[in-house]
Amino acid sequence: MTERPSQITGMLLTIGDEILLGDIPNGNAHHIACELRARGFLLDRIITVGDTEGEIADLLRQCLDRCSFLIVTGGLGPTDDDRTNVAAARAFDLPLVTNRDYSQWLKQRLSDWGIDWSREVERMAEMPEGAVKIGLEMAGFFLLHRQIPCYFLPGVPDEMKYLLAQAVIPDLESRFPKRCSYIKQVVRVQGMLEAEINRRLRELEVEGMGVSIGYLPQGRENWVTIFASAPDEEQCRELIKQAEDKIISLIGSQNVSGRNDDCLEKVIGRSLRQHGWKIAVAESCTGGLLSRKITAIAGASDYLDRGFVTYSNRAKTELLGVPEELLAAHGAVSAEVAVAMAEGARGNAGAEVGIAITGIAGPTGGTAQKPVGTVYIACATPERSSVEKNLFGGTREQIQEHAAQAALVMLWKLLTNERELRCD
Amino acid sequence: MTERPSQITGMLLTIGDEILLGDIPNGNAHHIACELRARGFLLDRIITVGDTEGEIADLLRQCLDRCSFLIVTGGLGPTDDDRTNVAAARAFDLPLVTNRDYSQWLKQRLSDWGIDWSREVERMAEMPEGAVKIGLEMAGFFLLHRQIPCYFLPGVPDEMKYLLAQAVIPDLESRFPKRCSYIKQVVRVQGMLEAEINRRLRELEVEGMGVSIGYLPQGRENWVTIFASAPDEEQCRELIKQAEDKIISLIGSQNVSGRNDDCLEKVIGRSLRQHGWKIAVAESCTGGLLSRKITAIAGASDYLDRGFVTYSNRAKTELLGVPEELLAAHGAVSAEVAVAMAEGARGNAGAEVGIAITGIAGPTGGTAQKPVGTVYIACATPERSSVEKNLFGGTREQIQEHAAQAALVMLWKLLTNERELRCD
Repeated sequence: MTERPSQITGMLLTIGDEILLGDIPNGNAHHIACELRARGFLLDRIITVGDTEGEIADLLRQCLDRCSFLIVTGGLGPTDDDRTNVAAARAFDLPLVTNRDYSQWLKQRLSDWGIDWSREVERMAEMPEGAVKIGLEMAGFFLLHRQIPCYFLPGVPDEMKYLLAQAVIPDLESRFPKRCSYIKQVVRVQGMLEAEINRRLRELEVEGMGVSIGYLPQGRENWVTIFASAPDEEQCRELIKQAEDKIISLIGSQNVSGRNDDCLEKVIGRSLRQHGWKIAVAESCTGGLLSRKITAIAGASDYLDRGFVTYSNRAKTELLGVPEELLAAHGAVSAEVAVAMAEGARGNAGAEVGIAITGIAGPTGGTAQKPVGTVYIACATPERSSVEKNLFGGTREQIQEHAAQAALVMLWKLLTNERELRCD
Repeated sequence: MTERPSQITGMLLTIGDEILLGDIPNGNAHHIACELRARGFLLDRIITVGDTEGEIADLLRQCLDRCSFLIVTGGLGPTDDDRTNVAAARAFDLPLVTNRDYSQWLKQRLSDWGIDWSREVERMAEMPEGAVKIGLEMAGFFLLHRQIPCYFLPGVPDEMKYLLAQAVIPDLESRFPKRCSYIKQVVRVQGMLEAEINRRLRELEVEGMGVSIGYLPQGRENWVTIFASAPDEEQCRELIKQAEDKIISLIGSQNVSGRNDDCLEKVIGRSLRQHGWKIAVAESCTGGLLSRKITAIAGASDYLDRGFVTYSNRAKTELLGVPEELLAAHGAVSAEVAVAMAEGARGNAGAEVGIAITGIAGPTGGTAQKPVGTVYIACATPERSSVEKNLFGGTREQIQEHAAQAALVMLWKLLTNERELRCD
């Protein structure tokens, strides 16, 4: 009899007052969920609890009753509020013993720093009896308890990430070789309301397709996620492919910009590189955010050689050649000035495409005619210039983010509609 | 007998497969923890669970056994995987009834969009009997169960935030008027290792001070957080003040850049405005990130009128006047070019201060002499120019982020050390 592949689900316990108190977001949980998912492991509960020995011990016991594996992060450091090793010993009813190698390494490290800290070091190096140290140069240990693998990792993100990749995931993969394959695919939809996407996809008979569909608004973009689970990866890919084809035909391929981590910045960069075109960016109210997004992509120097942050009118005139009369007649936040900025940036850089943003990010500076959130975005090519007016809501940062995203959508549309952009 | 103020702790249940699957970080939990904390309410557990009716119902029952209030987010939408209202009815053993007003509003809204969605609307408008609708134009309801207030909020971040501020927090404040005051203060430390901060603060006898101290590395910055809890706010402030004075004297005031949300960008902006100085920014490998950080602060136009993203050598020469011979002799990533960029930006903008970043963000472009992560940062004033060489680790985005943060630290040091910067 062959073992059937199954879904392996585990639990994650993140320990730390700093998350409960709102000091930091739980970035570790997000990273661990992503990485596990990519290897076909699922989390069915994430629990955050403070640095309280009794609570941690109770939760450890509860978790072990209902999961195939357990990952715990945090509370392994040297300070008084690091109680995870003591709580684990209590939950598993094991004595605490000192790990000699780790204790030695800690002492050496601290003496290199000129720090004498022996009591705390001793405590950090204590682990429940039978625990195996994971990674020598940082906190972390492994325990197999009633056949359930339990991984205790430090809360410091870089250390946690390192041990997760180097130790936890390889160990899980060797323990659960017969798990289901699990693949997610994101379809990125531009310029369409979530309700409209829902309406169009109502025709999908998901039940018969062996996949499940999720919706996730991401700022101005909407993500349709397709999940497939099957005994092997190839079957997953086949299910995803069938569902994706139907989804794209219902939504319209002209509204789909890419899949998975193929963000607009990447798609735009690829398109510019394929055409051998350069782009120049001129920004007022977004202050460099659009340039920053474009240059976050490796190899952006192939198509972006310069960008301008022109906050003042003088900067717009001196750097982009926006006529002073135009600024006086229409104001810096106007369709005319946006177009002049895009054309000026294009000309200055000798680029095929210029894109410009000018607007009022607030919180002050709005008027009745041009309230906070008014943003003009212009694109210029040798053939034509186009401009669009937007009114965005939210805080200063949200308005800046909306404006930069909307500029990317405008660029993407321009680049995918080649009839409008003939630069030969 | 007067009631003594006490700490009010609640639990947060965030519902959604998208968090467990790693699609999105749990931003809602972070926001709720921050906002509650600011009003003197604490969370002692945050649990994330999938859209499974039975699991949600079990957890609701468990939570109610051990908290003073309960907040639940997510699972109130129209799709099949939104099960929170059904689970709540089951957990509280109440029938589901339709909320007429909400049902009407939903129908109207969808008919405005031309969407016929009657079955889903009916389901969205159902609530456990006795529930009070919170906010009409979005999902959300309130239930008092065995004297424990339970708030059910939508998972959509903007809607959740709105209802939290408008309904949940005011209601909690009226129900728990006699709670402890609880204040947190962050001291932001620059240019000092966490281990060194620990060493210096070992002298603090925290126990006798009525506060607790936490350490939180934030990128290149280290935060020392001081928590105080006392019957009233004034006593809290007094405790914080005493502790803060001691902490700053042990760390050295020259290493402390600000407190709470007084980030470097704000401190730098204030200093520039006070001096009546302007700044010009020239960036290569950070592609606009430093400008973006500076202009994220409202009113940045008072001191920044332009910034340059000069990716190519030609852009460095044309916009900033970096001599071609200098680029040929030293390469674009060099101390000499960084200084020339800072001076060029300063001159072009007629600003008192110029700052420039040039480096290799990777993943390609590194050499044995100048590996990926090599970044030069230069500051120029009328009196002098200075430059520093850095080697940052991590991904492209991390290197860019480190470089922009290091530039802010350099600027801050320059501005706080006025002997070095006399622009009169």
